[in-house]
Amino acid sequence: MELIWNRYGKARVRLVHVDRTPARHLLRDLTVDVQLEGDFAPVYLEGDNATCLATDTMKNTVYAFAHEHGITSPEAFASLLAERFAGQPPVTRATVSVVEQPWRRINVGDTPHPYAFIQTGGEEWTTVVVREAEGGAVRSGLRGLVVMKTTESGFAGFPRDKYTSLQETSDRIFATSVTATWLYRAGVVDYDLRNEIRAALLESFATHDSQSVQHTLYAMAKAALHQSDAIEEVTLSLPNRHHLLVDLKPFGLDNPNEVFVATDQPYGLIEATVRR
Amino acid sequence: MELIWNRYGKARVRLVHVDRTPARHLLRDLTVDVQLEGDFAPVYLEGDNATCLATDTMKNTVYAFAHEHGITSPEAFASLLAERFAGQPPVTRATVSVVEQPWRRINVGDTPHPYAFIQTGGEEWTTVVVREAEGGAVRSGLRGLVVMKTTESGFAGFPRDKYTSLQETSDRIFATSVTATWLYRAGVVDYDLRNEIRAALLESFATHDSQSVQHTLYAMAKAALHQSDAIEEVTLSLPNRHHLLVDLKPFGLDNPNEVFVATDQPYGLIEATVRR
Amino acid sequence: MELIWNRYGKARVRLVHVDRTPARHLLRDLTVDVQLEGDFAPVYLEGDNATCLATDTMKNTVYAFAHEHGITSPEAFASLLAERFAGQPPVTRATVSVVEQPWRRINVGDTPHPYAFIQTGGEEWTTVVVREAEGGAVRSGLRGLVVMKTTESGFAGFPRDKYTSLQETSDRIFATSVTATWLYRAGVVDYDLRNEIRAALLESFATHDSQSVQHTLYAMAKAALHQSDAIEEVTLSLPNRHHLLVDLKPFGLDNPNEVFVATDQPYGLIEATVRR
Amino acid sequence: MELIWNRYGKARVRLVHVDRTPARHLLRDLTVDVQLEGDFAPVYLEGDNATCLATDTMKNTVYAFAHEHGITSPEAFASLLAERFAGQPPVTRATVSVVEQPWRRINVGDTPHPYAFIQTGGEEWTTVVVREAEGGAVRSGLRGLVVMKTTESGFAGFPRDKYTSLQETSDRIFATSVTATWLYRAGVVDYDLRNEIRAALLESFATHDSQSVQHTLYAMAKAALHQSDAIEEVTLSLPNRHHLLVDLKPFGLDNPNEVFVATDQPYGLIEATVRR
Repeated sequence: MELIWNRYGKARVRLVHVDRTPARHLLRDLTVDVQLEGDFAPVYLEGDNATCLATDTMKNTVYAFAHEHGITSPEAFASLLAERFAGQPPVTRATVSVVEQPWRRINVGDTPHPYAFIQTGGEEWTTVVVREAEGGAVRSGLRGLVVMKTTESGFAGFPRDKYTSLQETSDRIFATSVTATWLYRAGVVDYDLRNEIRAALLESFATHDSQSVQHTLYAMAKAALHQSDAIEEVTLSLPNRHHLLVDLKPFGLDNPNEVFVATDQPYGLIEATVRR
Repeated sequence: MELIWNRYGKARVRLVHVDRTPARHLLRDLTVDVQLEGDFAPVYLEGDNATCLATDTMKNTVYAFAHEHGITSPEAFASLLAERFAGQPPVTRATVSVVEQPWRRINVGDTPHPYAFIQTGGEEWTTVVVREAEGGAVRSGLRGLVVMKTTESGFAGFPRDKYTSLQETSDRIFATSVTATWLYRAGVVDYDLRNEIRAALLESFATHDSQSVQHTLYAMAKAALHQSDAIEEVTLSLPNRHHLLVDLKPFGLDNPNEVFVATDQPYGLIEATVRR
Repeated sequence: MELIWNRYGKARVRLVHVDRTPARHLLRDLTVDVQLEGDFAPVYLEGDNATCLATDTMKNTVYAFAHEHGITSPEAFASLLAERFAGQPPVTRATVSVVEQPWRRINVGDTPHPYAFIQTGGEEWTTVVVREAEGGAVRSGLRGLVVMKTTESGFAGFPRDKYTSLQETSDRIFATSVTATWLYRAGVVDYDLRNEIRAALLESFATHDSQSVQHTLYAMAKAALHQSDAIEEVTLSLPNRHHLLVDLKPFGLDNPNEVFVATDQPYGLIEATVRR
Repeated sequence: MELIWNRYGKARVRLVHVDRTPARHLLRDLTVDVQLEGDFAPVYLEGDNATCLATDTMKNTVYAFAHEHGITSPEAFASLLAERFAGQPPVTRATVSVVEQPWRRINVGDTPHPYAFIQTGGEEWTTVVVREAEGGAVRSGLRGLVVMKTTESGFAGFPRDKYTSLQETSDRIFATSVTATWLYRAGVVDYDLRNEIRAALLESFATHDSQSVQHTLYAMAKAALHQSDAIEEVTLSLPNRHHLLVDLKPFGLDNPNEVFVATDQPYGLIEATVRR
């Protein structure tokens, strides 16, 4: 019997950090995961915990670091944590993942309030920092960005076999929940690209004449890579949230792409990575 | 044995309606529930389905009505459906509930796109229309409006018994997910109050000097009632999403209301109805 | 403006209680909600917390009572808590709800282990105890009991209107997730009916020749009331989890009630109360 | 710009199959995912769908195969599907994942009913079959097996740094939700090991004198590998669902490992693979 792979850590450390020093409070709402890999065989085989940093200590470190270093960005905060954990033998790889829940200020009249906030829904920012002896990698991204276009999307020319019943179409609804991650070039230290990459993804989704989800995925990835030289690679995951045209003929009615049933499952799932 | 209460219907009819007639598509994303009450005893006691409108027919009616009548507002659409079902013996009460998932247009540059949309997160609009022989009622509202204020919230002066350990505080985080419903005055036909009532709720939350969740709930309900004469009554449900100050003293650090752990459970739950 | 209704309390207090005194540990896994009603107007209108028992104190009371009184049954435990809270002015009604997650012992060989347990899935036991000045009520039940029969279920003879497309059938799948609650007669103190009422519900579901969900609901409620004189009233909620026959004709295949697609939504929802 | 990786397919195809030929119906409740990899560059880069098998066709194939081949086991069914999809150029790898929801017969008296079933809760069986030109792999497993032991679990001797506050303990609750997968040796065709491997995992969890989650994970993996020569490798993922002792001292009470608060987050997460 051989232990050929192992990883452990603390998941879902919920951290809300308020910077009260400025006249207007700054709010960060993060969920942090820490995962360590290395030669922890004695812990598994012999019950010897001498090298087993407690996951409770990982949690404490997250909270203490928030106080000691503040949170300039999720990427910078995750990098500090990854560096600390990667430096503790026998750790050979430390991975710190952060999900940021965005909030924006409540407006009172037209004035943003100094300490009252509203959560901006299901979309979240993500960061994964990996640190190893030979170096590391920073990936950032977003998830839960749900978009829909009600025309300029088709799917035709696909192969037909004995189990094919789908009709070709030049006009269907295209709805998806975008998950995107991008890999920063080594040496990049300014990670403040989120909003511009997000805008590039949205614009290309809106304006692309889609022949398939794959076709639009590639256009979106290209748009993100064009947006900034700081990123090398983009991975997109696009579930195809099918909207089926309701058959109203039994009731003597037509349905010219107007009334749809939104379905949860099954769904197509299209994923790809594009590198510069 | 007596059947003393019964209700049945179709739940979660997912309807996406696209109005393609204007240059810019209009999109409605609704989830509709239909519930009927009345003397359906033969269905239950004898397996006699002569009066039992199939829930499948309810679903079809939702889709057909979307085509035949369009959706000017969730309230108007729910009212049409409730009226149809209430008119079918032995129905004595028809309740139609609609949850609307909001979408907004994607901007390309500064221009809203004519047929590409982005979902605006976890917040949803709600409507419940009840129709009976003697009349009916229209309630609208919202849910999933998640807000937080990082100061100007306290809780003190509460009674202490042998199981009380909570410290009094004049400065805590107040975070909640607002569920609000308001009852329209009989005779109202213009239901377009959503955004202004929402703004009133948000402003009062932001600016209220909170002595308790209850205290702010009342201020928010008053603000909503002040906003419009068209509504008679407001019900608010405010879960208290506790944010606990992390104790950093074991690590030699203070924590001046800066680092918090956000908790899911348990949570306080405060609910009340205020009538004009 | 008038405060016409209010209720507050603590929700989702997670309590795991281990009775270690016997040779074999006894395990209870409960989630407790406490809700209080009464004249709390000063809390809402004036921010005066003098009568506002902290929800944190409610939580502490749950944990302290678990230690002081043990948990002989969820009903007895909820009753003790409701009695304590109902006795504190201005409370006029205290409601304590308990959801019990069942566990059973892990077998080692054929021997039940004294302190190792396995969770028995999605089904949960429920109790709601209401205590008011004039008395109270104890309701118990279960939820998440998912059952299916693959034949002996039909639906025919229902009315047809212009939106009806459903075919009559004498042989369909009937699948549902049972939620049941039963009201104990006043004066009952032995609440240990759960397993026998559950068995009565299951047997009647299995053996009933179903003409509709309503028809079987009534048979199940009757079976529960027949099972024990200790209960007065049964409420059942039966979502109809539709299993649709897949149309295989496009592929040159028949489908004699063999291949189904299980759907989540929309679903029929049938609810009724039967009293002795 | 280069497309360096891509994968697509249909997710969550919900299939319920009833074999009605025997006197007692046989029921299979599966959720199937199909994923294909290969050189699909023209689909992404040029919107040329000539090689793009529609995900709708994948779904149809699942349903048609259920009729044509029946379902002798999830592994055999997934293998048939993987073989079909892997044979269609330009596919170089086909992955078919199946989650099986178990049901058991309802007992009427002591007799298992021929066509009425009850779902056995949150635990599910899993299978992932990968098929490539050079061969393939079959992994099976389970997830959602939630277990707890109330003693014979400790955690001590771990390193202490400036952020460590956890106390050593020789007696704590150990609760987890087991996810297990095992890799079958090439050439194995009888996959009916599920129940015996599950029993081995449960027995080792129950009887192991745990020095850490890692320590017990290794014991469980060894027990599974000892159980059957047909498997080569076991991967376990064990979230540590912390149960915290409630501090009752403020109320003048002790708490000798009796009253716990069950927490959802954060949680430790321990994962490892053991190979023969």
